[in-house]
Amino acid sequence: MKQSKMLIPTLREMPSDAQVISHALLMRAGYVRQISAGVYAYLPLANRVLEKLKNIMREEFEEIGAVELLAPTLLTADLWRESGRYETYGEDLYKLKNRDSSDFILGPTHEETMTALVRDEITSYKKLPLNVYQIATKYRDEKRPRYGLLRGREFIMKDGYSFHADQDSLDETYLDYKKAYEKIFERAGLNFKPIIADAGAMGGKDSQEFIAITDDRINLEKWLVLSKNIASIEEIPESVLEDIKTELGKWLVAGEDTIVYAEGGDYAANIEMASSQFEPAVAYTEELELEKVATPDVKTIDEVAAFLEIDPAHTIKTMVYRADEELVVILLRGNDQLNEVKLTNHLGASFLEAASEADVEAAFGAHFGSLGPVGMKEVKIIADREVEPIKNAVVGANEDGFHYINANIGRDFEVSEFVDLRTVNEGEISPDGRGTLKFARGIEIGHIFKLGTRYSEAMNANVLDANGRAIPMIMGCYGIGVSRLLSAILEQFARIYVEKTPKEEYKFSWSINFPTELAPFDIHLVPVNTKDEAAMELTAELESKLRAKGYQVLVDDRNERAGVKFADSDLIGLPVRVTIGKKAAEGIVEVKIRATGEVVEINKDELVNTIEILGQN
Amino acid sequence: MKQSKMLIPTLREMPSDAQVISHALLMRAGYVRQISAGVYAYLPLANRVLEKLKNIMREEFEEIGAVELLAPTLLTADLWRESGRYETYGEDLYKLKNRDSSDFILGPTHEETMTALVRDEITSYKKLPLNVYQIATKYRDEKRPRYGLLRGREFIMKDGYSFHADQDSLDETYLDYKKAYEKIFERAGLNFKPIIADAGAMGGKDSQEFIAITDDRINLEKWLVLSKNIASIEEIPESVLEDIKTELGKWLVAGEDTIVYAEGGDYAANIEMASSQFEPAVAYTEELELEKVATPDVKTIDEVAAFLEIDPAHTIKTMVYRADEELVVILLRGNDQLNEVKLTNHLGASFLEAASEADVEAAFGAHFGSLGPVGMKEVKIIADREVEPIKNAVVGANEDGFHYINANIGRDFEVSEFVDLRTVNEGEISPDGRGTLKFARGIEIGHIFKLGTRYSEAMNANVLDANGRAIPMIMGCYGIGVSRLLSAILEQFARIYVEKTPKEEYKFSWSINFPTELAPFDIHLVPVNTKDEAAMELTAELESKLRAKGYQVLVDDRNERAGVKFADSDLIGLPVRVTIGKKAAEGIVEVKIRATGEVVEINKDELVNTIEILGQN
Repeated sequence: MKQSKMLIPTLREMPSDAQVISHALLMRAGYVRQISAGVYAYLPLANRVLEKLKNIMREEFEEIGAVELLAPTLLTADLWRESGRYETYGEDLYKLKNRDSSDFILGPTHEETMTALVRDEITSYKKLPLNVYQIATKYRDEKRPRYGLLRGREFIMKDGYSFHADQDSLDETYLDYKKAYEKIFERAGLNFKPIIADAGAMGGKDSQEFIAITDDRINLEKWLVLSKNIASIEEIPESVLEDIKTELGKWLVAGEDTIVYAEGGDYAANIEMASSQFEPAVAYTEELELEKVATPDVKTIDEVAAFLEIDPAHTIKTMVYRADEELVVILLRGNDQLNEVKLTNHLGASFLEAASEADVEAAFGAHFGSLGPVGMKEVKIIADREVEPIKNAVVGANEDGFHYINANIGRDFEVSEFVDLRTVNEGEISPDGRGTLKFARGIEIGHIFKLGTRYSEAMNANVLDANGRAIPMIMGCYGIGVSRLLSAILEQFARIYVEKTPKEEYKFSWSINFPTELAPFDIHLVPVNTKDEAAMELTAELESKLRAKGYQVLVDDRNERAGVKFADSDLIGLPVRVTIGKKAAEGIVEVKIRATGEVVEINKDELVNTIEILGQN
Repeated sequence: MKQSKMLIPTLREMPSDAQVISHALLMRAGYVRQISAGVYAYLPLANRVLEKLKNIMREEFEEIGAVELLAPTLLTADLWRESGRYETYGEDLYKLKNRDSSDFILGPTHEETMTALVRDEITSYKKLPLNVYQIATKYRDEKRPRYGLLRGREFIMKDGYSFHADQDSLDETYLDYKKAYEKIFERAGLNFKPIIADAGAMGGKDSQEFIAITDDRINLEKWLVLSKNIASIEEIPESVLEDIKTELGKWLVAGEDTIVYAEGGDYAANIEMASSQFEPAVAYTEELELEKVATPDVKTIDEVAAFLEIDPAHTIKTMVYRADEELVVILLRGNDQLNEVKLTNHLGASFLEAASEADVEAAFGAHFGSLGPVGMKEVKIIADREVEPIKNAVVGANEDGFHYINANIGRDFEVSEFVDLRTVNEGEISPDGRGTLKFARGIEIGHIFKLGTRYSEAMNANVLDANGRAIPMIMGCYGIGVSRLLSAILEQFARIYVEKTPKEEYKFSWSINFPTELAPFDIHLVPVNTKDEAAMELTAELESKLRAKGYQVLVDDRNERAGVKFADSDLIGLPVRVTIGKKAAEGIVEVKIRATGEVVEINKDELVNTIEILGQN
């Protein structure tokens, strides 16, 4: 393909309105353009990457017997009224009317459509399981669309739905999808983790998210590709490295999710779901006498601990929440943080918020800073399980300026249950005992989910079972954010290319090292001077030779300065660049392997071999 | 692919709400389902056909240097205000508001988006021509969605746009597209014609439509596929043929367009644009004296001709139109029909309608039935060019109950111009003299169009030319109705399969003979009894053998009666059916070539060869 025919509007600078690297580079390298807030055009390069992603997905889904179809996007409100989501989905739902004033929506997801489709055609358990998916445009009227393709209003999703007569069948398909997702993301070259996700909100059972890890800024070497005349990073002057760090530091770490994973183990979970190993303390400690002590002007746990000269782990923090109208008292070890998702899921609450100080005063006659469980009555007290082993704890006295010391569970106050409510910390032990917990930031690229009968019951999607009884179909749903994958890939494959000029100056610039299987083309042929006939002839010869070998080739046939061509080539980021320069007449070209920075001058006849040997990234 | 995993909900009968064969068969064979009026889900079979169509298009467009991208569908109203179409497009435009109450539309077409995209990136003629396309979902709020995928509210289009610095470049790309379209429709196996289309409405220059011809019901043989035990159509009893004709007659001939083509020549045009050969008569005829004659109670041309015992071709019909507020008098040969599109285009009018009788009376003091040009003053009289040679014509006398005979142009009335205004008739000579005009019905499947500067001027999409002057880009646009192609294909490849039962009864049923390059799978493997282990083993063996040869194979692994399986297979319509029946243990299978009705029993080892030899349709 000739570059002059492509629309690749590269920019000289990183765009000032981008906050994350992927957004900036997608714009700068001419992959996308914004048409309106959160709504993008995928220019030819991006479109090619998307098509490659789609093909990878199709191959892997065929392996697990999932069948592609294409449902519409313009959906009647009636369909969504059946599930109840027309009213509950919120402001993210695009609503519109047709010429007859009937209500429609633009589908942000397709549980209703697929459930209705299958319900209307499948009546017997014998026709199940059924496992369908589509790759299509979705709409969500995001309040604050941002970060390029990461949070858009129009985006591309792969959404799959499976229908089963029994739980075992769902479990099997769920596992199939998990494996297929892992293969897809591996083929895309991504560093990702499947994590335990919060299934509570959608009323389902098991749920896993697939998170592309977004790298921190600490490991500088990971970001750098050095030109051939730079031996190692040590050679680069400190001031240049500082400039590079400053440039890196300008960009937000992309990804709305903090994930927790076990270094040295398999465990990984969303921070909202993560647990750590819990070993109830068994040591015997004598219970001392409860005593009220004056603690003037101290309020926070740290202030109390400092004032009493104790470890915050020996204090118990008391919090009050309103869960579906009822007040609940929560006890946590002083140095722990409450995880509201865990609490919501534990209570099965559909609504949870911290109680107001007024509510708290009315109920317990105390201010926030002096709350404590001693003497609290007629209220449910739930404690994190780390609270159970604490003996002789410091707690609030429900009286400003005072705390109790030596408070003990069972003797001085009652706890109705001990459950896991705390947010884990880095360095704790994985719940399965294998590995130490670490935190990372990441982008959600996939989600698999056991829906159960949430939609089939609401929408009357039943089949007859072997005994002729009507049972609701059991469902799973499986999503991949296709356009967002493009951002995740750029976050992981953005690089800073460092060069040393003939004057021994060090220069650096942003570039992309596209992974081989997804790059829009395999090879970039760059004739330096398009008026050099020998070079252009050689270019044509190499292009047809490479294409015959099955490579996809982009030829920079533009009449531009060499500097412009090379800069654009670095931005576009194809795995191999072949420069056809002054030695073209002798049949000599230069091959650059982008991932390694390796550069070799070879005879044209060695080109195919060289690429096969060096180009395995 | 296992059929049990596909969602192919075939129906036992043609659906009662379908009016055209393609709609009925798409539903009945389980290719599509309607989700709401004019909005369809493409089930797995249809999705596979669509993907094949897309791939054909991609291959052919790559050949002409057109580059694929993907623009969004949710478009700001502002973009459409720039072109003026937000206000003028009419009720077919889906309008909606986002959460901030900004106006948006769902794109029915993308001239504005593409023009804005290219305008914002391309500033010099050196970067032109540029030729981009997308394959995407479009929206049009049709007043009366109908005929399945032929007139839907959500549909798939291939829309391409080219940008040029000069007319020659546009002309070249336009021709490239014409050739690419012809290749695409040929590869799809379609009987189609490129025709001259009306470009006037969009303010453009050249325009061609590609029309898939929808067959009449007369050529019965074209519709029939006979089972192997029926020697020829002559053998079928007349009563059965009558039933088949009745069944065929139930269905509307699909296609909103009447096209005119030259049998024995290349000429083809939309009826609204069609001309025929015009040879001005040169024979000398003496001009007789103008005479007013009483013609009591005769009004129509036929009545006048009958009353005066003359050929209607010797009468001149007088009509009055209102074109952009001005009255215009039109003269036509008595036996001709006015073509309003030709008149509109000739006048360059943006609004045209027949004048009311009241207007006519006020202007000429005469009723409709007695209008004539003699004595008309201060009005523009335009005549069809067939009027010019008429001597001694009969015309209305602008007085009820009277006509003039022997009226002659120049002597008795003046005509300001003679132009082609009539609708052609079948049997006339093609304008290029080659062939006789015939009419046909058809479905518009493609449209190429020289837009000129309609959008670039309105939207300020300029480039600098070689002299540094800003010039508006010259544009072309090129559409293919992708989902509608599916209907066109079904209209042409629907068949009636006639069988003779062992009891010598003749039965017929609808089936589809999918063209090879578009069939959702190449081969249908049908093991008759899924509990017969030998048959299932042989099926698996044949499937892997055929797949290794590159064939796409659908295996009917369902535990259904043979009759159900064969009926579904006929409906699904794959080019080759392989039946694995009772002789499976001996390695014998039956091959049926759908297009010819040919059936052979062969040894399993001959299968690949047999398909290669017989399966070329």
